[in-house]
Order: sequence, then C-alpha cells, then structure tokens
Amino acid sequence: MSGPDTPRGTGPATATEPEGPAMIEEHRVTDWWSTAVSRIRPGEILLRGYPVEQLIGRITFAEQIWLMLRGELPSPVQGRLLEAALVAAVDHGPQAPSIAAARMAATCGVGLNSAVATGAGLLGDVHGGAGQQCMEVLERVIGGEDATAVVAGFRDRRAYVPGFGHRFHPRDPRRDPLLALVREAVAEGGVQGRALAAGLALEAALAEGRTRPVPMNIDGATAIIYAELGFPAELGRGLFVLSRSVGILAHAWEEQEGGARIKGPLPRPLLAGYRGTPARDLDE
Amino acid sequence: MSGPDTPRGTGPATATEPEGPAMIEEHRVTDWWSTAVSRIRPGEILLRGYPVEQLIGRITFAEQIWLMLRGELPSPVQGRLLEAALVAAVDHGPQAPSIAAARMAATCGVGLNSAVATGAGLLGDVHGGAGQQCMEVLERVIGGEDATAVVAGFRDRRAYVPGFGHRFHPRDPRRDPLLALVREAVAEGGVQGRALAAGLALEAALAEGRTRPVPMNIDGATAIIYAELGFPAELGRGLFVLSRSVGILAHAWEEQEGGARIKGPLPRPLLAGYRGTPARDLDE
Amino acid sequence: MSGPDTPRGTGPATATEPEGPAMIEEHRVTDWWSTAVSRIRPGEILLRGYPVEQLIGRITFAEQIWLMLRGELPSPVQGRLLEAALVAAVDHGPQAPSIAAARMAATCGVGLNSAVATGAGLLGDVHGGAGQQCMEVLERVIGGEDATAVVAGFRDRRAYVPGFGHRFHPRDPRRDPLLALVREAVAEGGVQGRALAAGLALEAALAEGRTRPVPMNIDGATAIIYAELGFPAELGRGLFVLSRSVGILAHAWEEQEGGARIKGPLPRPLLAGYRGTPARDLDE
Amino acid sequence: MSGPDTPRGTGPATATEPEGPAMIEEHRVTDWWSTAVSRIRPGEILLRGYPVEQLIGRITFAEQIWLMLRGELPSPVQGRLLEAALVAAVDHGPQAPSIAAARMAATCGVGLNSAVATGAGLLGDVHGGAGQQCMEVLERVIGGEDATAVVAGFRDRRAYVPGFGHRFHPRDPRRDPLLALVREAVAEGGVQGRALAAGLALEAALAEGRTRPVPMNIDGATAIIYAELGFPAELGRGLFVLSRSVGILAHAWEEQEGGARIKGPLPRPLLAGYRGTPARDLDE
Repeated sequence: MSGPDTPRGTGPATATEPEGPAMIEEHRVTDWWSTAVSRIRPGEILLRGYPVEQLIGRITFAEQIWLMLRGELPSPVQGRLLEAALVAAVDHGPQAPSIAAARMAATCGVGLNSAVATGAGLLGDVHGGAGQQCMEVLERVIGGEDATAVVAGFRDRRAYVPGFGHRFHPRDPRRDPLLALVREAVAEGGVQGRALAAGLALEAALAEGRTRPVPMNIDGATAIIYAELGFPAELGRGLFVLSRSVGILAHAWEEQEGGARIKGPLPRPLLAGYRGTPARDLDE
Repeated sequence: MSGPDTPRGTGPATATEPEGPAMIEEHRVTDWWSTAVSRIRPGEILLRGYPVEQLIGRITFAEQIWLMLRGELPSPVQGRLLEAALVAAVDHGPQAPSIAAARMAATCGVGLNSAVATGAGLLGDVHGGAGQQCMEVLERVIGGEDATAVVAGFRDRRAYVPGFGHRFHPRDPRRDPLLALVREAVAEGGVQGRALAAGLALEAALAEGRTRPVPMNIDGATAIIYAELGFPAELGRGLFVLSRSVGILAHAWEEQEGGARIKGPLPRPLLAGYRGTPARDLDE
Repeated sequence: MSGPDTPRGTGPATATEPEGPAMIEEHRVTDWWSTAVSRIRPGEILLRGYPVEQLIGRITFAEQIWLMLRGELPSPVQGRLLEAALVAAVDHGPQAPSIAAARMAATCGVGLNSAVATGAGLLGDVHGGAGQQCMEVLERVIGGEDATAVVAGFRDRRAYVPGFGHRFHPRDPRRDPLLALVREAVAEGGVQGRALAAGLALEAALAEGRTRPVPMNIDGATAIIYAELGFPAELGRGLFVLSRSVGILAHAWEEQEGGARIKGPLPRPLLAGYRGTPARDLDE
Repeated sequence: MSGPDTPRGTGPATATEPEGPAMIEEHRVTDWWSTAVSRIRPGEILLRGYPVEQLIGRITFAEQIWLMLRGELPSPVQGRLLEAALVAAVDHGPQAPSIAAARMAATCGVGLNSAVATGAGLLGDVHGGAGQQCMEVLERVIGGEDATAVVAGFRDRRAYVPGFGHRFHPRDPRRDPLLALVREAVAEGGVQGRALAAGLALEAALAEGRTRPVPMNIDGATAIIYAELGFPAELGRGLFVLSRSVGILAHAWEEQEGGARIKGPLPRPLLAGYRGTPARDLDE
C-alpha cells in the first residue's frame, strides 16, 4: 500500500498501520522533525490546519504572520494592531549597523537573501532585543510589581529601562500614533489595556524628578502592542526582525542597484585610523 | 549654528551652507551613506518622504513593503496581489533546508534573529532563486521571444524551466488561486496581463507532447504576479525572502519553545553513515 | 601635499599636521574606525606592527592567529599548545547541527563562504559556548573558590558543569592527549599549570560519590589550554569557531561536490510528522 | 545486540547484519547523512581515518586543514606553502566590508561566532571570490590557452583579470614573498610550477604596452599556491574564508572589548545623507 515513492510521515498520530520494526524506525525519524506549523504532502499544503489555497486572497500578509505564529487567525482589532506595529519599525536608516551591514553585503557579490541574513543577524540582544526586554519588564508590572520600584531597580544598576529614551530622538515620532491605536483597541474591547497601563506607569515613573523626560520609544510602544496581543516576549524580537527586514531589503536593493563594489564604511581616500604598535621588524 | 551635538548630513541637496574645507569632508562622508529610502533626523523618520507617524494605522504591512521597495504606495489592486503572493509562500515545512536549519539554530543558544538569518541565508540561487529566474524567462517572452523556442532551449541544455514542475507536488495547490487573482486584476484593469500570458504560454509549451504535464509552481505563479506588478527580477527573490521568513520564524519559535538543545538532523541513537578511509594509524 | 587620491587616516597618533576644521572632521571619521590590529596603506600591510611580507613563510597559521588576537608572537611552547587545541576541535560529524546546516547550505546555491557562515552562526551559547563557560568556571577556581563547592553549586541548580561529561562519548578521546601536552608545557616552564590544576580539581569533585565518572570533554580540555595561555574566556569561543570552521568547510565542500540540490534533513520519501490542528475549512 | 542506546549507522559498508525492513529504513536515513570526512562513534573520533588522539600534538593546524579537505596529510613542502598562503590573507583592515560588518556585529549583542559568521557571509563572489576566479583562469592557461589571448578576452569584455591589479596597493606587498616560496618549492621538486608559469605569463601579458603595470595581487599569488597544491578552484575561496576569519575575529574582539554599543558606520553627529523624495503628506 505504501510504496517506495509514497511520502510517509505526516499521518495522524492515531495511525493504525501494523507496526513492524521498519515502522518503528520510520516514526522515530519523522517524529524527530514533526511540527504543528504545517503539513506538506503531495498536492497539499496545510498552514495551521488551513489549506493554503483558501488563505490566498482572503487574508493579509500580517494576518498570515499571526496565523503562523499563533495557530489561529486574529480578530480584526488584533490584525489592525499587528499591521501598525509591523509598519512602524521597518527602518531606521543607514546609521543603524543592521542596515549598513546589509548595504555593504549587497556590494560583495552575494544574493539579496544573504544581505537580508546579514542585517537580521545583527538584530541581537543589544540592537534588536529592547522590545523583547521591555515586554519582560511590562510583564513584571502587569504581574503586580510597582513601576516606580522597577524603575528604581534599573537606576540602581545604572541600566537603561528597555523601551524608554532614545539616544537619537528626543521624542520618538512613532510613540503617539501607536499608543493612540492601542487606546482605540481598548475602547472597542479588543484588548485589555493592561500592558498600556504598565507602560504608561513606567514612563511616568521615569519622568519623576526629571526636567527632561525619558519618553517611550518604538521598542516600548511595540512592546505594549505585542504584549496586549498576547505574544510571548521572545516573539517580540521575532516580529521586530520581520518588520526591520523590510528596511534591510530596501536598503540592500538600493545599494545593489547603485552598482557599488566592495563598499566599505569610509569613502576613499579616507582610511581607518591606526592606534597599534608602531611598525617593527620581525628580526629585531 | 551647527554645534557639536547637531546631527548633520541629511540636508537637502540644494543646501547653501558655506562650504569651507570641513564641510567638504563632511559631505563626502555623509554622501557615502546617502539614501533615498529614508531620512532619519532627531524627532523625524521619513519613509520615502512620508512621515512614519502618518503611515502607522493607515497602511497595511504589505503596502509598507511596497512603499519601501518602490517609493510610492500601491493601488488597491496592486496591494491585493502583493498580499496574496506574500501569503502564499510563507512555508514549505521542515523538509526544506532553510526551515530545518533555522529550527536547528534555535536549539543552539542564539537569538531568534540568528535563526531567521540562518534560514534566509539558505535561500540562495537554487533554494530561493527560482522565482527570480522565472521572472527573467517571463521577460524574454514578454519581450517577444517564442515560448516554445524558449522551452526548447532549456530542454536542449537539459535544464529545468524555472517556475514549472515540482519535485514534490504533482500540482501545486497555490497555482490556481494566485492565477485567478491575476485574472481578476487584469479584468479590473489593474495590471496588464502580459506576464500572465507569457507564463501560460510557457506552461502550454511545456505540456506539448507530454502525457504528464509540468504545471506552474509557486515560483512561477508568484513570478507572474511580481512581474505584473513591475518588480525587477532580483526583488522577486527579495520578496520571497520576506515571505518565507515568516515560516522560518514560526518553525524556529516552535523548536525553541520545545526546549531541545543542539538538535541534529538525526534522532538518537542513529548516527551519520561513514563511507571514508577505514581506521588507520598515523605511525604506519 | 595631501591630494584627493592620497589615502588619509592611518598616520601615527603623534602626527603634527596643521589641524584646520577639515582635519577635525577627518580625524573624527577615521578615528571612528581606528584599530590596533592592522595598518593598511598603499603598498603597506602591517599586522600588529609587523610588515606582512616578513611574516609570510616565517610563522605558522596558528602563530598568525595568536599574533592577530594577542598582539605579540607566541613562544614555541605557547604555539605548540595552540596548534594542538585548534587541531583537536575541528569536527564532530554531521550529527552536529552546525555541520548539518552547513552541508544543507552548500546544496542551496550559495558560495562556500555562506556555508561556513551558516555553520559558524550556529555555534551559539549552547552549541559553541561550553569552552567559554568552562573558562569562566576555571577562573573562579583559580581565583580561590573551592572546586567541590563550585560543583555543588551547579548540582543545586541542576545544571551541567560546562566542559565535563558528554552526551555522546563515555570518555572523550581528545582529553588525554591534550592534558598530556599541558603537563609537558608545565614541566618545561612554558605555562603555570593553574588552569590544569583547577580543571583536575573540578573533575575529581565531579567524580566523588559516583560510580560513573563525568570526565572532562573537549570543551574542558581546550578551556584549560586557552586559560593557561592567557586568553580571555570570550576568545575561547572565538578560537573554537576558527577550529570548527575547518570541519564545517570540509563537510560543506563534500556535500557541494556531491551535487545534491536543496538537501533537507530527511531522505525521500520520508516526510516530517505533523502534530498540529487537523485539516479545517476557512469558511467553517 | 543492538539495543536502543547503541548508536547505529557508522558501520562499514560491508556490514553483514541481516537486513529486515527496519534496517532498510535505517540505512536509508543514516546514508542520507553519510560522509567520508569523519566517523564519530561513542569514544571514537576518526578524522579521514586517523584517530583524533593521534593527530593532537603531531600536526599543525594548517596540516589539519589539509587533511580535512584533501583526505591525506600534506608533504612538508605542501604544508609550508599552505601555511604561507593562510598567513598572508588574514586581514585587510576595517575598510573591508567584511571586517567592518563584523566589528559592527560585535556591538549588537551577539556572540563572537555571529560576528565571524557576519564577516564570512560577506566574502561573496566579488569580495571573496577573486582567488577562486583566478584559479579558473590559471587552469585555462595551464590547459593550453595563450595568456595574451586570455587577457585580450577580458579586455574586450572590459573586465578585470581576477588576481591582478589592486584598487589600493600599487604593488601588493604579499606578492613577492609568496612567489619566492613557490619558486623554492619548485626547486625542491615539491610542486610542478605550472600554475606559477601561468600566473607570470598572465602578468606579463597584462603589462604589455602599459606604462603602469598591473601586478599580481594577493588573490593571484594565493591562487597560484592553491593551484600548485592541487586544490579545486572552489576551495580557493574556502581557504581564503578560513584565513580571513582570523582577521574578522581579531577585529570583532577588539570592538567588543572596546564596549561600543550599536556602532554604525558614521560617528555622531554625522547622519547619512538623504537624496529621496522631499517630505510629503499622506493626505495630499
């Protein structure tokens, strides 16, 4: 019944095929790679249970992102918030190392996929992790910790509160429109507003006794949205990576189209400075 | 006027600041990294000229992708086709090396951004380039070459026509719904239909004299859409990378949540086979 | 004197050029990228102060690695230990995710450099960080902490002591020859032996009260060497990456030469198992 | 005999175990990942047939690289040439995009392994492929093509001959010492000298009728060595990646030790220039 050209391994867990020794091995192997994300069989692509042909033309790309990560489709309010957060974080220009590295990659004779991989690879704990870290702080405040005490804890360690302040923007232009959308969603009953309240409490605690406030930045505002939407903190970074990949691709493509070759960080004739051992002789 | 803390370099090309020697250097340096994608200044983020705060809540993520890559917003028909193509290509399961590698990465103690970078890095000419290559073939047919002759050329070289046939699906379930959307868009006058005609001509030429046809696959169907939408072929791969990154992230996250550590391709106790030099002694 | 085609920026820190406003800018920019590793000027490549032409043919590759990372050349004893540690860790077969991912990459239409990047990218905290973590533990014992207490601390947290035990090898064949070389080096007065003593104390503490000991593995043995040689813990991982890149390249090349295309983790007709939502209809 | 905890799959190809259906499956799976590079079994690590414990302390790191890539140990002359080529190419300073990208990565909160992966990823066809391409040209001349005709072919296509000329060095300081070593090796009978002759013929052909010659660069000189040593052209790039990874690591570590965070290409307050659509309003 199951010949050599028949793909095997995606059957339901309740399969009642006779289990000889061969089958034991096969299950061990196909189970090793089993997944709840998709079922791919000849002529069939199920994504979280839905045939892909039903999804095409019916849902937006952001709704697809939600479905793939969460297993169910979002409500309209949820979908709208997710679209907004993804739209907001796509780019921060060539000063950002992720963007600069991707632009340089595009001049080195690699595919655009490698340029995107280069940029995504740089969105590490420091460059891409603030949203995830902010979600963890929001969870603490939602869980009952006092915002002022949390802020004091960071100050005692001389650490930044992730999601607040910006080395660049005195006021992040993305904060207000994102928070306005969260407020709307709360008013419609689409989300609960607990992460919003936690974020605003942290912002107020940070402003206390300061002449120059430390307003929420893009990481803080999107962290509020992702937390309101029920994403775990680690997916906060994951979603940021999807969003920023758009800017990375746009910049890599612009650079590739421009035709530069082996673009370094400095225009010629400038050279990197040298602060090392003066020239010396191996025989001395 | 322009003090040490004032960012410089994003001024309009028509700036009339006095150009002393210092300014010459500065322009040389900031021009080296200049871009038409975005302008980032304190308190300002322009994306293709639009303030980001105007875009948030107003456009979808797919429309943002279009804006960033093309410089203008899509029409509703264009936006719809782009959403559909991005939705269609998100995943092809753990058999795909890009997905498997990202899942393994997620068990090695790296951030989710590195897992996405790993997967995107594998979408090279062979694994991720068929759409781009198909767009190049479509352009030849649109440009006047005969589809039958083009197909014959590939057959003479014993090469696959990119975008047609599948080593896995006898009929790709994504083909029909994607082509139906293109037909609708043509009927509405939103796109011209020349890439669709070229793709169908190639498909027909491939079926000639065959009992088992070689139907268009996902790469072919999305290549038609991206070509109808006026994207250059290289961005065909770029868009595929954005789409597939969603599946890569969903799989990496599933694996990370599962808690496996240092997951290899084979379940224990299976070991990779050995077909090398038999054991030998360095002193013999 | 300094015309438009003359590279600038690598002059000695004691340069006495007149500093007009242009120069301020230039120094700010070239200093941003300044380094003590190398000075590259037209016709000149200084590596840690030595002209590269003097190094070629005079030092081994491992000695070059030492020079580049440490700034001075190693003594013969130091060089020998470094060679041995680098030789020992090159490969652990296709069961290792770093190797498997690189082999898959090599079938996807990317350059061998991308295959190496894929493998190196997977040597994260869990897959590539044990040596670095072991060095940190060794430093604690060298600094005076009691090995038994340190081991007890790990046991209390139900954590593995990094560098000891192996999920695969009952006794790591690389342990004894590496430790023998360290003992020789101590006898020759080339290294002090404090990390060796710390490692052996940890191993003894781990064996106490156990019928099956938990012997030192490759990460432990190389951690001892790198610590004896005075490398900071983070470079323990860095050196492991250089060593394992050799195996990654050998495997990627074998796979590329074999001509496979889009190699997934499972041979056909096996398919990844599915444990997700059963097939469902979007309209229901 | 073969219980559930016994690793399986690395047995000799001549195994005579009874082959029931289970074994068929198992062989199919373990063969899928089979390799001639190494055999890893509990307590055993064979590299190209040699037990790793015999190699430790007996061979240099460069000899290990040869063994892993070629399957046999090099002769002393071969080993010496390989050491020299690997020593020569480790670094070209922060102007190189691979180095700059790795330095930026090291400030983004990723492990040193990711920084190395970032740099290696940029050594694509343009930034890392000249040696490989030069080896292909050398092979044509070794195979009988006339060097002058080959050079003319490149000139007709207005293309550079890979391995010759440098946008930076009027004369590459690495050329002479590398060629001197090849000449010595030829004199000793260790290599044949055909690639050397081919390279010199190309250099002479390039100089004909020019006031300013186009001397061989590092890619050309190492290509000659790798070709003399019998490496296939693709491994020319692979070996370059191993060599340059040393500089990438040294620079990434210097940057990480310096403590910079999210280092972009431009020092503040400089900003990337903007040459895009002037600010506009979404509602106009």
